[in-house]
Amino acid sequence: MKHVIGARCTICGHLTEALPGTTVCPDCGGILDIEYDYDYIRSKLTKYDLMDRTDRTMWRYMEFLPVEGRGERPRLRVGGSPLYEADRLGKMLGIKKLYIKDDGQNPTASLKDRASAMAVVKAEEAGKTTIACSSTGNAASSLAGNAACAGLSTFIFVPSRAPKGKVAQLMMFGATVVLVEGSYEDTFRISAEAIERWGWYNRNAAINPYLMEGKKTVSLEIAEQLGFIMPDYVAVSVGDGCTIGGVWKGFKDLYAAGFINKLPRIISVQASGCCPINTAAAAGTMDWVPQEENTLADSIAVGVPRNPVKALKAIQESNGVTVNVSDEEIMEAMRLLGRNAGVFAEPAGAAGTAGIKKAVESGLIEKDATVVSIVTGNGLKDVTNAIRAAGEPMSIAPDMDRLLAAFDERGIRP
Amino acid sequence: MKHVIGARCTICGHLTEALPGTTVCPDCGGILDIEYDYDYIRSKLTKYDLMDRTDRTMWRYMEFLPVEGRGERPRLRVGGSPLYEADRLGKMLGIKKLYIKDDGQNPTASLKDRASAMAVVKAEEAGKTTIACSSTGNAASSLAGNAACAGLSTFIFVPSRAPKGKVAQLMMFGATVVLVEGSYEDTFRISAEAIERWGWYNRNAAINPYLMEGKKTVSLEIAEQLGFIMPDYVAVSVGDGCTIGGVWKGFKDLYAAGFINKLPRIISVQASGCCPINTAAAAGTMDWVPQEENTLADSIAVGVPRNPVKALKAIQESNGVTVNVSDEEIMEAMRLLGRNAGVFAEPAGAAGTAGIKKAVESGLIEKDATVVSIVTGNGLKDVTNAIRAAGEPMSIAPDMDRLLAAFDERGIRP
Repeated sequence: MKHVIGARCTICGHLTEALPGTTVCPDCGGILDIEYDYDYIRSKLTKYDLMDRTDRTMWRYMEFLPVEGRGERPRLRVGGSPLYEADRLGKMLGIKKLYIKDDGQNPTASLKDRASAMAVVKAEEAGKTTIACSSTGNAASSLAGNAACAGLSTFIFVPSRAPKGKVAQLMMFGATVVLVEGSYEDTFRISAEAIERWGWYNRNAAINPYLMEGKKTVSLEIAEQLGFIMPDYVAVSVGDGCTIGGVWKGFKDLYAAGFINKLPRIISVQASGCCPINTAAAAGTMDWVPQEENTLADSIAVGVPRNPVKALKAIQESNGVTVNVSDEEIMEAMRLLGRNAGVFAEPAGAAGTAGIKKAVESGLIEKDATVVSIVTGNGLKDVTNAIRAAGEPMSIAPDMDRLLAAFDERGIRP
Repeated sequence: MKHVIGARCTICGHLTEALPGTTVCPDCGGILDIEYDYDYIRSKLTKYDLMDRTDRTMWRYMEFLPVEGRGERPRLRVGGSPLYEADRLGKMLGIKKLYIKDDGQNPTASLKDRASAMAVVKAEEAGKTTIACSSTGNAASSLAGNAACAGLSTFIFVPSRAPKGKVAQLMMFGATVVLVEGSYEDTFRISAEAIERWGWYNRNAAINPYLMEGKKTVSLEIAEQLGFIMPDYVAVSVGDGCTIGGVWKGFKDLYAAGFINKLPRIISVQASGCCPINTAAAAGTMDWVPQEENTLADSIAVGVPRNPVKALKAIQESNGVTVNVSDEEIMEAMRLLGRNAGVFAEPAGAAGTAGIKKAVESGLIEKDATVVSIVTGNGLKDVTNAIRAAGEPMSIAPDMDRLLAAFDERGIRP
């Protein structure tokens, strides 16, 4: 791969060759970051070349991805998710311009499809036919779906608290699913042991440096959809730290290759009940402290983040903003997104929008700001919490007088 | 609209003007069908023009739609769903070539978004700001979502037995949801009374002729995605008859305008426990008889179809094939789609694929056939039945010995 220089350790700075099976730093065990030759990329691809491409998936950005091609196996249509102008909602939040990047519109209904599609290609390059991961849910279902399409096997470890919709997806995609009775930390540990034991391809986002390269395509798309005119802020919910890391990497890549001339500030949103990364970032330290996992937003309920370095660097380097939101604020954002933008988000998917609201209210960001909110997953993944957030409908006997009374009681004037 | 001739009654043949608020035939109350000037369309649009369009939504086919424009309001990204080459699954089903049109990849996760997006535009043209319907399923949630994005209000009447998840989706999109304590007939009656009383725009697929025009875009896309080289068959599940009618209308429009030179045969798939349309079609009569609603595929559990005329005509005119499938066969198709194509379908969404399998096995269609299966809705819509079809995962304490024992017990050899 002429455009890839190698994989550099985020801890010790050691540069290693980027092989298909590369995981952590061979020297210190640190998480690696794929490094590109931006001059080479610039010589091969321009903004105008992109305009001529008919491929609307994440693979349209091949020159920015650590692969030679996407292989021969069948692929799901990952990426190319809509970026909506949400003027009504933006006004309600009190900002100048709001865009919603609805990544719940991916094949298995979350942003994680971008990472899993990449994992499947790299597993094939590594000659593996079985892929494994531990996940709070979305990474798992996206891996299972993308691997099923390509004809690969999967072993998936999820905490037993994972929402039913996500588990149903896994089973339907034919994954071998292991529910682990414990925390995400317990789940991660047993999966690591099993991966080591059986030599499966490892799709654990914090260990496999390629996954973030898939995730970053969400930023490449946002930039292209905005005509490469950057917003002031991009808000994203944060759990493990891999997604925020990928989002930031995408913008940095575009900047380094001369596709954009301004970098957005990242709004890092965590749940108040589980915010180890934001707590460390706010204190200006890389030394994060584990926390309990007290939030209904299961996808970001990560008390022991696996990728704190890239997450903290993303906040630091982007001169970012940290916001912690309560479950109530998340549920309110779910309603705001549904009612004003027609976007049905899972709790973690709505957290970014909740964070924007809070950041404006507390004066952390300016009222004349342009902001992109990334919705990371679809609300159909977690119907139980959707019901909790959306409330109960009225119920009447089939009679016009009853209907009139029910409307009257609720102040509804049709 | 220069390209629209009018709305012709499917019963008495009377031609009436196609106004935004047009519903049934003013003469006999029959269902109307929008009629186009194909010579005019042909003079305005070619296959090559389409290649230059960057809009990937259903609105890229504006010349084939009964609208002047899509209005000024914000829109969800409806249409442009992927068409997958499913070679592995095709081989398993015993046919030469299988394509999966995954319409579960629409904003509210079903094909019904195509109809609801159209309803919202027509409601605006009619000067209405409130749309209503009585439905428990995908039509309701797609209406609520598309209307919410456009800033219109919705009143949705559902029987109180409606599944909680679907009600939650409606509530999240801000619909005014009225649970009616009674049968579906009761629900329909009170909604009709309310629509009449308050003059809301009526989104009822069998009454409103424009909705089928939205649905037909799935066929326009299939044709374009196949380079206008038609498959031998297109399989679709059938409930009230509106979707199969729309699918057939799309192909007929393309044929009439000279975009394709062959029409596919339609495979009409119903559930064995509820198949009034297929029963009538197989008997060669238009006189269908109501049936019980005995199937887990709720979206096609329609014992009294509201659009039998267009459905039966689609089967008849296309020299179609009728297949009825059991719930077991539907669940098997769900697993086949998930495990071999990475597509997670709701029961009614998988019924088309179940029908193809059965049609091949019983010699109704040839082994060297090319077939497109339309997946009409996402499996996340109906997690209960997904779990029923896919089974429950193993659950263990976070310990390697427990994992080994669990694998051993299930005969899993990693």
